[in-house]
Amino acid sequence: MERYEIAVIGTGPAGLSAAVTAALRHKKLLLLGQKDLSAKLSRAERIDNYLGLPGISGADLAGKMAAHIASMGIEITEDRITQVYAMGDYFALQGREMYEAETVILAGGVVQGKLLPGEEALLGQGVSYCATCDAALYRGKDTVVVGYSPREEEEAAFLAEVAGKVTYIPMYDGEVRLDPKVNVLREHPVEIRGTLKKRVLVTKEGEHEADGVFILRDAVSAGQLVPGLETDGPHVKVDLSMASNLPGLFACGDLAGRPYQYIKAAGQGNIAALSAVGYLADRKAAR
Amino acid sequence: MERYEIAVIGTGPAGLSAAVTAALRHKKLLLLGQKDLSAKLSRAERIDNYLGLPGISGADLAGKMAAHIASMGIEITEDRITQVYAMGDYFALQGREMYEAETVILAGGVVQGKLLPGEEALLGQGVSYCATCDAALYRGKDTVVVGYSPREEEEAAFLAEVAGKVTYIPMYDGEVRLDPKVNVLREHPVEIRGTLKKRVLVTKEGEHEADGVFILRDAVSAGQLVPGLETDGPHVKVDLSMASNLPGLFACGDLAGRPYQYIKAAGQGNIAALSAVGYLADRKAAR
Repeated sequence: MERYEIAVIGTGPAGLSAAVTAALRHKKLLLLGQKDLSAKLSRAERIDNYLGLPGISGADLAGKMAAHIASMGIEITEDRITQVYAMGDYFALQGREMYEAETVILAGGVVQGKLLPGEEALLGQGVSYCATCDAALYRGKDTVVVGYSPREEEEAAFLAEVAGKVTYIPMYDGEVRLDPKVNVLREHPVEIRGTLKKRVLVTKEGEHEADGVFILRDAVSAGQLVPGLETDGPHVKVDLSMASNLPGLFACGDLAGRPYQYIKAAGQGNIAALSAVGYLADRKAAR
Repeated sequence: MERYEIAVIGTGPAGLSAAVTAALRHKKLLLLGQKDLSAKLSRAERIDNYLGLPGISGADLAGKMAAHIASMGIEITEDRITQVYAMGDYFALQGREMYEAETVILAGGVVQGKLLPGEEALLGQGVSYCATCDAALYRGKDTVVVGYSPREEEEAAFLAEVAGKVTYIPMYDGEVRLDPKVNVLREHPVEIRGTLKKRVLVTKEGEHEADGVFILRDAVSAGQLVPGLETDGPHVKVDLSMASNLPGLFACGDLAGRPYQYIKAAGQGNIAALSAVGYLADRKAAR
């Protein structure tokens, strides 16, 4: 079987950045993921903090990233990897097909639990996963925020600075610390519906019409992908070089921890690729 | 004195990225550095791995970054910070002027090359890192200026307006554009010595006695900039959130360690800004 030097799993900003840097270093590269890139990225309405590309839409940013890898002749192998095994001096990757690589860069993002019915269909059309990113679109408008962990309160607080009205539904127990102008409701979301102009968050207790619905989830662990991989909740434990506890295995982007930001993911992809290059060089020297 | 929430020191990709994210979070921001952005960036011929902007020149990338911050109304305060003091619940920043900020993000890059023997010991005792700040101390006196980049010629020119005699030693190739009254010498500094009244810059070629010796680099070494800051060689010791050992002080970009890459710097700037935002929120909640 063909053995790659670097396998990158994931085609969001982290994976693409890792692939670009690995290719520039002339490494034998396998890039695995969706050809339409990160669905989450493509549907982001507006990104204001990807330095150098102000106020760009997710679709445009995804397009620029796709053009970047295409200009370098990097191809995406469409497969969904379900298991990665550390075999000693290489890794075996199990997807629809099997692959082998000397190093692996995990850049698949964090798994986001179960989606609400209607959520996926309305993403980018009044449903958002990032208050920091999309708050500006809801200036003076009504919003509903479903927060899966207390850290999402910071996002809701930020949204409340610009939005007209913010209703916050905590999906956790415990005190909610938010400005009194945020309406905190203890309800249980079951569905998101869209009408021509509004979104409706349906809960067991009632219905909430809004211009925007924010679903802010705490991520679900993706550590089952690699047996023996050390994780911290949903994230792979990495050091500053993006190295995991498994030699030759690196992680970057959302999977490597917060914040969940595109420019941060791209930066970490670059670090992970250079760390993999260094690891390959060290191994070669030791032979 | 006006107290900022976040002070960012440095206008390379790390500092600009931090500033963009801090501004998006509506923090009271002070961005300190050169208005012509990072000289090093502008001189890069071609950058292939800034994801989304393939094969861009350093000058074009700098232009896009400048346009990004301009589009958000972020202004650069031109000053060279030579000392940052942790005052307990805020930081005092010493440049040509004094500033105060609740948090500080260091993004000033790494010092190129080693310090000269004697430099550290004599700093503030006839050795200075900022001609604009200290020129007044050398009115009518003899000075020697070691300039590590062409932009330091402006500092030397300013000094020549007040000092008695200015000798300028460029540490770079290419033409030096300075008034004829500035004595330009192509020599190689090796040491700074101090006598009771004078400083002596020793070069391979000879010795130059002066009242003041100015060492003008693109960056000030982190350890000297912030008393008590933990460093690892030329780098600030940071964790994955870009936090240093000093609460409220963060570092990013080249200053936070290798690899020295633009996209990595931009990514870390974003992380540092969000960590500063989180730190501010935690402090507010604890009050």
